[in-house]
Amino acid sequence: MVKHHDDSLSRTFAALVDPTRRAILSRLAVHSDLSVSELAHPFTIKLPAVMKHLDVLTDAGLVTRQKHGRTVRCRLLPRPLGKAERWLARTSSFWHARLDNLTAVLENEHGQRR
Amino acid sequence: MVKHHDDSLSRTFAALVDPTRRAILSRLAVHSDLSVSELAHPFTIKLPAVMKHLDVLTDAGLVTRQKHGRTVRCRLLPRPLGKAERWLARTSSFWHARLDNLTAVLENEHGQRR
Repeated sequence: MVKHHDDSLSRTFAALVDPTRRAILSRLAVHSDLSVSELAHPFTIKLPAVMKHLDVLTDAGLVTRQKHGRTVRCRLLPRPLGKAERWLARTSSFWHARLDNLTAVLENEHGQRR
Repeated sequence: MVKHHDDSLSRTFAALVDPTRRAILSRLAVHSDLSVSELAHPFTIKLPAVMKHLDVLTDAGLVTRQKHGRTVRCRLLPRPLGKAERWLARTSSFWHARLDNLTAVLENEHGQRR
């Protein structure tokens, strides 16, 4: 039986579905911490919509928010991204290893036919 | 203004949210092509549920299905996984580069204080 329980990975991928949320993460990866209004600035959507995306990212453990006086500053938490990246790398590596084996078999067969 | 249109990436991440779909992809990465019933075998869910997951994976371009006589065989298409992996790697690399810069600044300050 295949065990398939990893809610944190599911939460990470669900958070990454939305392109605005990916853009928020990309900006936080480059710019260190940003206030919510700095973060919202380049987007065409309104501030409350950005706040909702930040809620999803915070719940998924991808962003942390801290109050500094009257402003809230956001930071990227990179650990869940690393975990998702490792899942993808592992899956791809199996596939590539299989491709390499297949290539070796075909090259061997080709060599024997000569 | 931030441009954020990449539907293929959104489709890939949406397909990866479900743990059963991730398990299907992991099996196809390891086992080359599998028939639908071979694929469904280790799961506790019924065949129609597996078929629905395969529909989502096919629509996202992650799996291809081919009829061989009376059986349908499934294969992994690795390109969208590679694209998702590269997005994550790029985002992480920005974050790590920023961390390295910060470490260098702190080490420099520490050196000057001595």
